[in-house]
Amino acid sequence: MRQSWEFFSTERVVFGPGAIHKLNSILKRFNAKNVLLITDQGIVKSGILDRVLHVLNESDYQVIVYDQAVPEPPVTSALECYEFAKRQPSTDAIIGLGGGSSIDLAKIVALLTAHGGHPKDYFGENAIPCPIAPLIAIPTTAGTGSEVTSIAVVTDTDTNMKVGISNNYLRPAVALLDPELTLKLPPYVTACSGIDALAHAIEAYTAKNYKYIEAEGEILFQGANPVSDALALQAIELIHQNLTIAVHQGSNLEARSNMMLGSLLAGMAFSNAGTAAAHALAYPIGGLVKSPHGEVTGLLLPYVMQYNASVEAGKMSKIAKAFQVNTAGLSDAEAAQSAVNEVFKLLEQTGLPTKLSAIGITKEHIPEIAEKALTIERIIRNNPRVPKLNSFMEMLYQAL
Amino acid sequence: MRQSWEFFSTERVVFGPGAIHKLNSILKRFNAKNVLLITDQGIVKSGILDRVLHVLNESDYQVIVYDQAVPEPPVTSALECYEFAKRQPSTDAIIGLGGGSSIDLAKIVALLTAHGGHPKDYFGENAIPCPIAPLIAIPTTAGTGSEVTSIAVVTDTDTNMKVGISNNYLRPAVALLDPELTLKLPPYVTACSGIDALAHAIEAYTAKNYKYIEAEGEILFQGANPVSDALALQAIELIHQNLTIAVHQGSNLEARSNMMLGSLLAGMAFSNAGTAAAHALAYPIGGLVKSPHGEVTGLLLPYVMQYNASVEAGKMSKIAKAFQVNTAGLSDAEAAQSAVNEVFKLLEQTGLPTKLSAIGITKEHIPEIAEKALTIERIIRNNPRVPKLNSFMEMLYQAL
Ligand SMILES: [Fe+2]
Ligand SMILES: [Fe+2]
Repeated sequence: MRQSWEFFSTERVVFGPGAIHKLNSILKRFNAKNVLLITDQGIVKSGILDRVLHVLNESDYQVIVYDQAVPEPPVTSALECYEFAKRQPSTDAIIGLGGGSSIDLAKIVALLTAHGGHPKDYFGENAIPCPIAPLIAIPTTAGTGSEVTSIAVVTDTDTNMKVGISNNYLRPAVALLDPELTLKLPPYVTACSGIDALAHAIEAYTAKNYKYIEAEGEILFQGANPVSDALALQAIELIHQNLTIAVHQGSNLEARSNMMLGSLLAGMAFSNAGTAAAHALAYPIGGLVKSPHGEVTGLLLPYVMQYNASVEAGKMSKIAKAFQVNTAGLSDAEAAQSAVNEVFKLLEQTGLPTKLSAIGITKEHIPEIAEKALTIERIIRNNPRVPKLNSFMEMLYQAL
Repeated sequence: MRQSWEFFSTERVVFGPGAIHKLNSILKRFNAKNVLLITDQGIVKSGILDRVLHVLNESDYQVIVYDQAVPEPPVTSALECYEFAKRQPSTDAIIGLGGGSSIDLAKIVALLTAHGGHPKDYFGENAIPCPIAPLIAIPTTAGTGSEVTSIAVVTDTDTNMKVGISNNYLRPAVALLDPELTLKLPPYVTACSGIDALAHAIEAYTAKNYKYIEAEGEILFQGANPVSDALALQAIELIHQNLTIAVHQGSNLEARSNMMLGSLLAGMAFSNAGTAAAHALAYPIGGLVKSPHGEVTGLLLPYVMQYNASVEAGKMSKIAKAFQVNTAGLSDAEAAQSAVNEVFKLLEQTGLPTKLSAIGITKEHIPEIAEKALTIERIIRNNPRVPKLNSFMEMLYQAL
């Protein structure tokens, strides 16, 4: 039995409509003279980059912009960006502006800026000796939580495989969340990223308790602890109450704010507690179909909750309460089922698929998906019910 | 109206029975070769210092111990300790071991180690240019939350006044909480520090919302925000359920763990949201009588809750729920009153005074106390009901 838990956190979270106007004072606190801003073409075209540059230009530091971030950035792109940064005499602070990919790329470049070397040197866990360069993450979606997580996903250009770099030093120093930046996100992107945040919150909340995680020594994903629980439960409530509104009323700033807050809290929770079976299964599925990550984790979520309900009925019942279900008179098992039903309802209300067949998965894929998911030890071990091949496949057949 | 809020946090919290055994890996992460440990004579005599040194001695760094910390450390003591540290070729990491005072002293010495100068240079807020030396805070009581706060209280030896140094850089890099270190705390110390943690949690939770704090620019205590709310409410529940047990069954490790956790969560909450009227009033009272800080804040707490109930009945009602009061059928105002009653009950169960006269305050003191409290702008402005001299005095007469 593990005796202790740890909670790692971003040092500074800045949150609110118009919060980007705090960028100057944040950069001042880093004594930054030369700033590298990393973003992507979507952010350039949407006009968000201009809005941020407008804030930055008012002050007395140099900014260069790398706007070529792509999803699951290839390591070559990290090296290219790192070389690009050398146009300045120094890189005192790095800004990652965009969805999860721009922020992930910014994490890798901040790592190379501080320690040199090649991204490959850092694949896996615990290979980073000390803090990365000062990094300010400005998300433009509400879902990945990347602004407060310790993980970056890159593509190894030699093997063409997705690889994670995970280390608590990879957490940005500042997470700057301005919900106004999300007002124009299309409904489908809002739905996919929002339901992913719900999956983060629910998987973190129902993760096996830290005491019972079967692993020795320091681990990144430690299972549920009291701090991650408090944050995750609030995230669950916020996302449930606001996702449908944010999808259908994109310009509703209150719903957008609450979604961004839910995503933040979920990120703080899962980057410590870890995710579980839905995320483990999403990786092999992501290799088979083109669906966005959130569409897959969201689809799997209610099935995984059902799969886990028998060993986490108490927490599932608290999720039902957070979903505003009247649980008076319900057994924990009944309340858990009502929580599952609420997630199905949310998928329908936001136009997301509820069946694997709808995203192109067939019966023939199931054994491979289950087998591959079971090998992702660092999150599979978080699942409250120990997943076995047969029961996993049975669950997936039900989801077809 | 303020548009955004910020949440500052300790980067790393390590929590659990036996957690002190993680000190080696923590120091390794700082690449520390020379370590300064700051503690007090109580910790030496209790044998706790030996237990910690036993852990440290196993590894390959040098440790020197300064064991002369005293409550509300005089600035001369900070300078003395800073000079003492220079016996080593460098100070790569500082450990503050003890109650709030040892940790406060360690914060000041970590500040001097990084930036030089005199403690006086940093009195007040926002005078620290960049991070202090790596600081590991190991609390041996459950209450102050100093391990995660951004404040140090010192005594100005010229004027003999208590002075605060407040800055987000003053937050320790690591908070290491081992509830086993609190098992031998006497009941009275347990009660006073535990009820202070409840006052932190309740004052942070019911603090004016960040939007409505009347102040410009960056402020340390920003009022309630969604993250501080989530943490504070969990703290309220934990402390209410465990304080009486911890007082009466000192060796009950579960109650001790939950109290330490409650104190931690309360510290994370109030160091961002701030405290309010009970703490403002406790300062002038602390100048008049010898009662420990927590005895005073705890005594004032139910009266202040009653004073504020009319403008924060909704949150007071949530406090009642966290206290396990069955609020079904109660109005918010009735639920708020039941929360107040629960705090009185807790004071009685833990043997703490419920009347100002019991700690030596008389009718003649009241005007001065009320007047002085009203001048402590940075926490008075957090109080949800705007305190006025007359109503404040009325409340204090009731508490006599
Ligand atoms: Fe995800
Ligand atoms: Fe206090």
